Amino acid sequence: MRPVESSPAIQTLLDELERLPGIGPKSAQRIAYWMLNTDRDTVVRLSEAIVRVKDTVHFCSQCYNYAQDDLCEICSSVRRDNTIICVVSEPRDIAAIERTGAYSGVYHVLGGALSPMDGVGVEDLRVAELMARLASEDIGEVVIATNPNVEGETTAAYLARLIKPLGLKVTRLASGLPVGGDLEYADEVTLGRAIESRRVL
Amino acid sequence: MRPVESSPAIQTLLDELERLPGIGPKSAQRIAYWMLNTDRDTVVRLSEAIVRVKDTVHFCSQCYNYAQDDLCEICSSVRRDNTIICVVSEPRDIAAIERTGAYSGVYHVLGGALSPMDGVGVEDLRVAELMARLASEDIGEVVIATNPNVEGETTAAYLARLIKPLGLKVTRLASGLPVGGDLEYADEVTLGRAIESRRVL
Repeated sequence: MRPVESSPAIQTLLDELERLPGIGPKSAQRIAYWMLNTDRDTVVRLSEAIVRVKDTVHFCSQCYNYAQDDLCEICSSVRRDNTIICVVSEPRDIAAIERTGAYSGVYHVLGGALSPMDGVGVEDLRVAELMARLASEDIGEVVIATNPNVEGETTAAYLARLIKPLGLKVTRLASGLPVGGDLEYADEVTLGRAIESRRVL
Repeated sequence: MRPVESSPAIQTLLDELERLPGIGPKSAQRIAYWMLNTDRDTVVRLSEAIVRVKDTVHFCSQCYNYAQDDLCEICSSVRRDNTIICVVSEPRDIAAIERTGAYSGVYHVLGGALSPMDGVGVEDLRVAELMARLASEDIGEVVIATNPNVEGETTAAYLARLIKPLGLKVTRLASGLPVGGDLEYADEVTLGRAIESRRVL
């Protein structure tokens, strides 16, 4: 069911918009018509922001977060605690943790998680780079914040085995019930984990 | 609650993406990270398609649908029935009707609907242009396909009063239960309209 568009330029725009994650034919059409109705300056600003992000953003040379300079804003900040490294799979996980305001250390982006099914091995992740940082920097704790799924847990277990012999404290984000969630709607695995990890009040 | 982004270029892109209809902070971030992970060509194609649509698409000189040439693809087609005009509020309504495949006539886009609350009067819509077409072209029927809401119904009633004296057949899209819908979940107005407009089987 393709929309019948009265202009090839609109059809091309719809095709390109539908490649975006979470954008189906209806959203693409809504956005395309919004663009047709909006002043040219706003639309050009978006178009330029898209290309600029591709041309100016690269990986931080220290933690592999996205950065515009050699170091990202977190690695180059004097207000961060450089003795704690939080290990994440992707740069977007850094944004999620930063939003909490609960962490003031630095990060290391692996660029994925171990997944034999998808052929992702240790050599595909930035594990050697992490070990080099642990050897040369003055680190006291490594927080492993890979996702709480099979690949993330496998990666966390592998890293813990690798890092513990260095005499560093290795921690993992807590699993449990989401705050504000309902016991009734929690899946068994999450609820089971919440019971195992129960706290003394 | 703003995401803390490690690059001004990413932050600018997020700000621009969030202006799009239906795109909140989460969707914007998902799209921005997708763009960072996607090859440059794909991203540039989108960026160019956005500007091209602004620079090449204008209104059809006859029906005010979006068009790249003087006439839109529907007005310039030899396969359309030029004796029936379907009057819609916006170009996107044409796309919706075309998808049904149930209509083979031509269109006229008003550019809105009468709304005293929002200060939209007859002079803000392309009513004079419609009347000029009815006077000069060989039209047998006018299908009024404005939205089935207060503004759309007001506009339809106004146009019917204006056009009927010309001796033309004026019709309106049927209101009733959505196909595949549940009686139980229909709002009272729609259900009431479906009862009033019941058909003999």
